[in-house]
Amino acid sequence: MATTTVSGMTQDRLLRTIRVRNRHEPGVLGRLATALGALGATIGNISTDAITEHYTVRDLDLLVDDEQHLQRVLDAVRALSDTMLLEVRDEVLQVHSGGKIRMVSRLPITTVAALRKAYTPGVAEVCLKIKEQPELALSYTGIPWSVAIVTDGTAILGLGNIGPIAGMPVMEGKAALLEQLVGLSGVPILVDSTKPDDIVRAVELIAPTFGAIQLEDIGSPACFEVDQRLRESLDMPVFQDDQQGTAAVALAAVLGACRLTGRSINDVCIGGIGLGAAGLSIADLLHTYTGQKILGADINADAIARHEALGNEGGTLHDVMARCDLVIATTGVQGLIKPSMVRPGQVILALSNPKPEITPAEALAAGAAYAADGTSVNNVLGFPGLLRGALEVNARRFVPEMYVAVGLAIAGMAGEGELVPSPLNRRVHLAVTLAVARAAVETGVARQSFDEELLATRFRA
Amino acid sequence: MATTTVSGMTQDRLLRTIRVRNRHEPGVLGRLATALGALGATIGNISTDAITEHYTVRDLDLLVDDEQHLQRVLDAVRALSDTMLLEVRDEVLQVHSGGKIRMVSRLPITTVAALRKAYTPGVAEVCLKIKEQPELALSYTGIPWSVAIVTDGTAILGLGNIGPIAGMPVMEGKAALLEQLVGLSGVPILVDSTKPDDIVRAVELIAPTFGAIQLEDIGSPACFEVDQRLRESLDMPVFQDDQQGTAAVALAAVLGACRLTGRSINDVCIGGIGLGAAGLSIADLLHTYTGQKILGADINADAIARHEALGNEGGTLHDVMARCDLVIATTGVQGLIKPSMVRPGQVILALSNPKPEITPAEALAAGAAYAADGTSVNNVLGFPGLLRGALEVNARRFVPEMYVAVGLAIAGMAGEGELVPSPLNRRVHLAVTLAVARAAVETGVARQSFDEELLATRFRA
Repeated sequence: MATTTVSGMTQDRLLRTIRVRNRHEPGVLGRLATALGALGATIGNISTDAITEHYTVRDLDLLVDDEQHLQRVLDAVRALSDTMLLEVRDEVLQVHSGGKIRMVSRLPITTVAALRKAYTPGVAEVCLKIKEQPELALSYTGIPWSVAIVTDGTAILGLGNIGPIAGMPVMEGKAALLEQLVGLSGVPILVDSTKPDDIVRAVELIAPTFGAIQLEDIGSPACFEVDQRLRESLDMPVFQDDQQGTAAVALAAVLGACRLTGRSINDVCIGGIGLGAAGLSIADLLHTYTGQKILGADINADAIARHEALGNEGGTLHDVMARCDLVIATTGVQGLIKPSMVRPGQVILALSNPKPEITPAEALAAGAAYAADGTSVNNVLGFPGLLRGALEVNARRFVPEMYVAVGLAIAGMAGEGELVPSPLNRRVHLAVTLAVARAAVETGVARQSFDEELLATRFRA
Repeated sequence: MATTTVSGMTQDRLLRTIRVRNRHEPGVLGRLATALGALGATIGNISTDAITEHYTVRDLDLLVDDEQHLQRVLDAVRALSDTMLLEVRDEVLQVHSGGKIRMVSRLPITTVAALRKAYTPGVAEVCLKIKEQPELALSYTGIPWSVAIVTDGTAILGLGNIGPIAGMPVMEGKAALLEQLVGLSGVPILVDSTKPDDIVRAVELIAPTFGAIQLEDIGSPACFEVDQRLRESLDMPVFQDDQQGTAAVALAAVLGACRLTGRSINDVCIGGIGLGAAGLSIADLLHTYTGQKILGADINADAIARHEALGNEGGTLHDVMARCDLVIATTGVQGLIKPSMVRPGQVILALSNPKPEITPAEALAAGAAYAADGTSVNNVLGFPGLLRGALEVNARRFVPEMYVAVGLAIAGMAGEGELVPSPLNRRVHLAVTLAVARAAVETGVARQSFDEELLATRFRA
């Protein structure tokens, strides 16, 4: 059965599927639903597995608050005389079972002829050709379509420093999305050290394997040093998704919020609350794009100093809420923005995941003209096309024009009433890819040209 | 069309496919074939693409000596009045175009429900579970089925130090074979340094990403240090395919040669010519398995010293040829063994690829009882099952009993008259996997048990 879609404010609850056998008589399902509802469990999809003369087997998707709540709900189901609890399934865990990605051969190797071409002796000819003409590696290896997704596990999602192995499901998810959305090979690389020197050295040593480097969930401030040093030492595109990737998507959200509230991005005062990896980079890109000084707040004086060094202005939480028309929060602190701080007509993008600084409902009730949380502003809108566009033209590096191109391309694909478009719309990723490739060519970082029609055709294939 | 299989002594020639349009009249193909034959080109498969009233379009596979020979052959085809040369294709390069492997998502991500389970917010639940119970990474990530295929490019095939990028086609080939033969994810890692310190450090830093490390084509003597240090520092299976992988397959070949010549491995005097990565490891494993001192020759005194330190005996090329019943050569020096050195009844395994120390035909003509070259003794028989078997039981490390198990399992699958079985027979890889897993359990390096029937079932699926 199609699993229930969990969205918006329910996102931090647990989704479980229970299989029950009901006596086949009127009113049994009603009693079960009543018992579940009385305990505060939300019922999602219900599907019927078998109907016999005597009983019915059903799967019910349930949203519960946490494990304790789940146990109370299951006890209530067990207490019903006409319902038998057969099984409790975790559909999320099932998706992750065995890992979400695998490396596969692009061609079957089932005959001796195929083996001799793909492996020895045929492969020797290809190796020698590349040795003689190194640029042939672009044609005869997967290197130019391959992206290292590198983490030290210090800032996994909003979960903090949980280590690289516990962060692997996120890296595998990013790799799965790269393949599904833009056809690139994403290779997770878990680094067994949180020292910038070690992370930089590990990536430098294995860099020839890849066409680009995506740093992922490396905590602040180490991420700034790692990103900066690798950009300088490697002759290939390097970015951290939580910095430039988030900034590009946030630019799209800011443009969308302006469109939805009938304003121009150049006429609003923009403020940022939280100047970590994401917040600092968002402010930097908005400064680059609008030319205005972004007012930024953070409890850490070093963060404010970094923000000011980028040409922006430092302030307090209260300064930002009092002076700015459009506020972007990326602090990771749930409930930081009180409804009393919101001024009528303000636009509030409280992007911390999974728990925003203020919920959209609270912000709107306090008079905000528009409000959104991080569920609708997701990096997956940006990083796939950013990478594919750069690799398509064999870019030397990323430049800010390419991040701006991502933001504008995403914003341009939003439908009526949408802040940003759906990340599952492949046309969005094609638009981002084309925009990034064009920006790379225009700024001179592209090492080769590209054909827009051919690229669009390959995307549809 | 099925491409012509190139085997045995033809392996170092070039395979090209020409497409020609012949006038549709008797004798044209005969004249074409005569012209090709007169220049020494070998014709393989001929397939017909189109037959019309006036002409016939055919693809012909041609084996030629080298590029100069190809040009002479093409000129001769162009000179024929009733044949038009339409195209010259390199089928080997076509197989490698765009790279041979790709990382893919194991599940489609085309709905919001799938996105929210595979990526945020669902993935956070999985990350937290792994943080609380690290062993859950074995269930909910691909780490335990993932193998780093690490090279510095210093000893790619028999081509020498061509650098890691030119070596990538070999690494991709190994990864493709791992997937096709035993379902593992092989991830090439190209190291941008030939210093053992750097290679060791790079692998140590990224080791948490993988379940095992396969070192590949790292030159001697650096490979010994890298292999040894990583075995000591990492709590996972590490091997170099050109050392232990080659040794395991060579053991199978030695057992096969003994079977084919009616001898017992314990009654023959075994000698090795060439004590590089492969030769030293083969001698070491044969010493472990038979208990006899292997007589080894090398032009490098350090290599002889390493050989003797492993409990074996050093000598010269002439000593080995004069004293041993079974000789294994791995020098990379074409024609090193002269027919005059071969003693009647000797078994000669001249394994250097692509050019053996003596061809099987020459050795047999000189009186050898049995002779083979490296084309029939290929590592692909061993490394896939060696890795799958170790990962199946979450082995702490490789031990010599596991390499012996590989050799015995391969030897046990050889058919009547075969030195070793076909590497494309999946039952061979199942047999190797089971033998390695059993050896790991018996020697106590397995961290978990396995179910033979379940494993066999998964292999068939």
